[in-house]
Order: sequence, then C-alpha cells, then structure tokens
Amino acid sequence: MKRIKLTVAYDGTNYHGWQVQPNGITIEGVLNQVLTDLTREPVTVIGASRTDSGVHACGNVAVFDTNTKIPPEKICYAINQRLPEDIVVQHSCEVPPDFHPRRRASKKTYEYKILNRTFPMPLHRLDCYFTYRSLDLENMRQAAAYLVGEHDFQSFCSVHSQAETTVRTIYSLTVSREQDLIAIRVTGSGFLYNMVRIIAGTLLQVGIGERKPHEMQAILTAKNRAAAGPTAPAHGLTMIGIEFTQCPGID
Amino acid sequence: MKRIKLTVAYDGTNYHGWQVQPNGITIEGVLNQVLTDLTREPVTVIGASRTDSGVHACGNVAVFDTNTKIPPEKICYAINQRLPEDIVVQHSCEVPPDFHPRRRASKKTYEYKILNRTFPMPLHRLDCYFTYRSLDLENMRQAAAYLVGEHDFQSFCSVHSQAETTVRTIYSLTVSREQDLIAIRVTGSGFLYNMVRIIAGTLLQVGIGERKPHEMQAILTAKNRAAAGPTAPAHGLTMIGIEFTQCPGID
Repeated sequence: MKRIKLTVAYDGTNYHGWQVQPNGITIEGVLNQVLTDLTREPVTVIGASRTDSGVHACGNVAVFDTNTKIPPEKICYAINQRLPEDIVVQHSCEVPPDFHPRRRASKKTYEYKILNRTFPMPLHRLDCYFTYRSLDLENMRQAAAYLVGEHDFQSFCSVHSQAETTVRTIYSLTVSREQDLIAIRVTGSGFLYNMVRIIAGTLLQVGIGERKPHEMQAILTAKNRAAAGPTAPAHGLTMIGIEFTQCPGID
Repeated sequence: MKRIKLTVAYDGTNYHGWQVQPNGITIEGVLNQVLTDLTREPVTVIGASRTDSGVHACGNVAVFDTNTKIPPEKICYAINQRLPEDIVVQHSCEVPPDFHPRRRASKKTYEYKILNRTFPMPLHRLDCYFTYRSLDLENMRQAAAYLVGEHDFQSFCSVHSQAETTVRTIYSLTVSREQDLIAIRVTGSGFLYNMVRIIAGTLLQVGIGERKPHEMQAILTAKNRAAAGPTAPAHGLTMIGIEFTQCPGID
C-alpha cells in the first residue's frame, strides 16, 4: 500500500466546494469516484484545504492510499484522462504512509482577485470579484500590515467555525495592482473558516474609504466577527498552493 | 436620429460567433434584441469584426441608429442591465451618421493566447489554447518578423473567404511570455478570414520545430492556403480593440 499525494487545480464555479456532502457535486467527491474507477479500489482522499463552494485552486493537495501498479508520478496522467475539464491534477508522487496534509506544518497561500474598472470583463467573471469603485491601494496595504504576524483572528473567523484555537500566523499579506486587476495575496500557517474572504472584505472597505487602516488593530482586539467587514464573494478566491515546511522531501 | 458606437466585450464560448445566423445564438443577435427592447425601435447593429464561433473580445465595435432619449454615454449602462453576463458593453458614444466601422480605415489588434505547461489550468480553459510541448519563442519571433509589413496574405486566408484582395498590412506582430502564458499579439489594417488563427497555427509549428522561421517567406510567396500551418483553435483568440485612424474624434 502506497500513500499518493496529488496537487489539484480546479475551477470551483460548478462545484459545491471541496468536501463531500449529501446534496451537490464536490471536488472531493469527483476525485473519490475517478480514483475508485481508476484503481478498482474504494478510494477516499484526504484534502489539505476544504475550499468553499465557488472557490478555485491552482495547487490544493490531497492524499490517498492505493495498491495500484501505476507509477506514482504517472497517476496524474491517468486521472486527468477521466476528470472533467474543470479539475486537473498537476502533479502526483508517493509520500510516507503517515503523511496527513492537514496535520503537517504548512504554509498556505491564497489569492483574492478584484477586477477594478468601470464595467466587468466577461472573461474575468469566474475568478475575480468586480467593483467599479475607486480603491486606495496604499490604505489597503497599510491596513494589511496590521494582520501580518501571529494574532488571534477570531474577528476574521466565521461564527460557524469549529476550530479549537483562533490564533494563526500570517507570514505575508500583499496588495498589488496590474492594470485593472488587484490581487490580495496572503500566506499563513493556516486559515480559519472564511478568514481570507473576511480579510478581503475588510480590506475592500478600507479601499473605498469606509474604514481607516488603523481600525484593523481594534478589529483584531475585539475578537468578534461583527467587528470585521463582510465576507467577500467566494468566486474571487483561489487556493494557490501549500508548502509543507517540515517535510523537505515532499514537493 | 443618432448613430451610436458601442465598444463590446464578450466571452465567445457560448455563442455561434458575432454574425446573426439561422441556427444558434450570436453576439450580434443578442445585441439587436436587447437594443430593440431598450429603445422600442427595431435595431440592427453593424459590427466591425465579425468574430468566429468561440472567439472572444475585449473591444469589438458596433454601431446602430436610434431616436432614444437616453444620453449616448449612458446607453452602455442601460444595455448592460439587460445583457447576459458574458457580454458587457464597455463604452457608448455618438458618432457621425455616416460612420461605418468596416468602411473606415482602422488598426485592429488581436491576441492569441497559449498556455504552455505540463497540464492545463482549469481557469484558463476558456481563453487559452493549451499545449504541453516546448516552444522556441526566439524562433517564433523570427518567423513572425517575416509577416510584418504589407503582403499578400492569401496563404493565411481560409479558402472560404470572399475578400476582394488578400493584401493586408501588419503593423506589429509580437510573441511574449509571462510565466507559462504566451501571447501572440498582432495589429494590422484588417485581417482576412481566419488569418490570425492561421498565423498562430503556423507560428506554433515553428515553436515546436516542425518548421524553420525562414519558411515564412516561402509560405507568403506560395499564395496558397495549403502552404501555411493549421488554423489554431478559436478559443485562444481575443479581439482586443480597434483604432479608427482617420477619425480623431472617435474613441
């Protein structure tokens, strides 16, 4: 029995998120079915980031155990022949049997994209949040700086969360613009439920002038979801990738 | 009666091209219907570029005549409220009554996008042609240089074309790469039927080493469609915009 790690990209538009649920097709559900068909063994993958409905990924990670004779590095080719075109496995390799993608220390990177112009562009409608409102990027950057480091992010956590602790570390949080496309990119030790979308929603309030950058400090201190801004829409969010920091052999 | 010019962006994925046809929904057909509903007058738009099925646009141009009391600059807002999300009018303004977007001298710019990596990325599947094959960009650039200038482009014209002359001028033709995304961008006085896609298909042959850059000269001289490469798939192509060179007041 081998444990295989997959790096998975998807357009989340047509899925009810990552995690298998009774109603609606999910990324995890499609992977389980395709891998069960491919290996002729009952497969249940373990995902690293259980992304919400409508959220996309370039490099989410999943592992599964199998006796298949397909070489680990070739499994991605075999899976992709069976997957729909909105899910593509980018890489496959063998990992130690005890490797669990949610229990290993990792750095996760997410990007929230904002299309900022007078009118929407049709080809960006699936993966960018659109706003015509003028955004002050310098203020957004100043606000973002308050969140970098180890903090209790309870104010940036959906009340539905079951996390044991709301303390997380953000290693970097940048706001960049290329023409009319603004990217909020955040790397952290892990993220609470809806945390990146609440950060994006709060930074958008700062961008349009509804809040001042320094208010971020009070929002953190409040430890109350109501203190932060709204949860930005799911379709602007993409899970970029995960680095397993204590597993140097795992790419 | 006023003549109104529209700048139109669309995701061509779900349309049978620009031009009204008996079977299938088209961009022109949707615009005619929405403008007829909006103005309560029978409207038929005149398009600048009659893009093929699956081809996208950022800045295609259409004009129509109307007695509507809506100010010309506000028409785009009123239309967008009625359009599906894959067609968005970016700009509207009044133009002289004799302004015809296909009969005025213009510079048109198209871009053909190629996603070049081991596996496709789902979010790029609608507007990029995917290839995992290694592409020699320097050779593609050398080949492209042969096409710049005034030439008879008969070899790069679909045999279905009804154009009177196959002489066109290409002002610039660049091949650029940003990470795994390659863009072939071409600006010209006008393009023959399928011309940009045949140029892209031929440059792709050069990129993978099936042809040498200098063969472009012989392809031009042959004046025979069979001498050039295949027509690259429609979904990689986007109509970027049109500049009306002898109409300084028209933006």
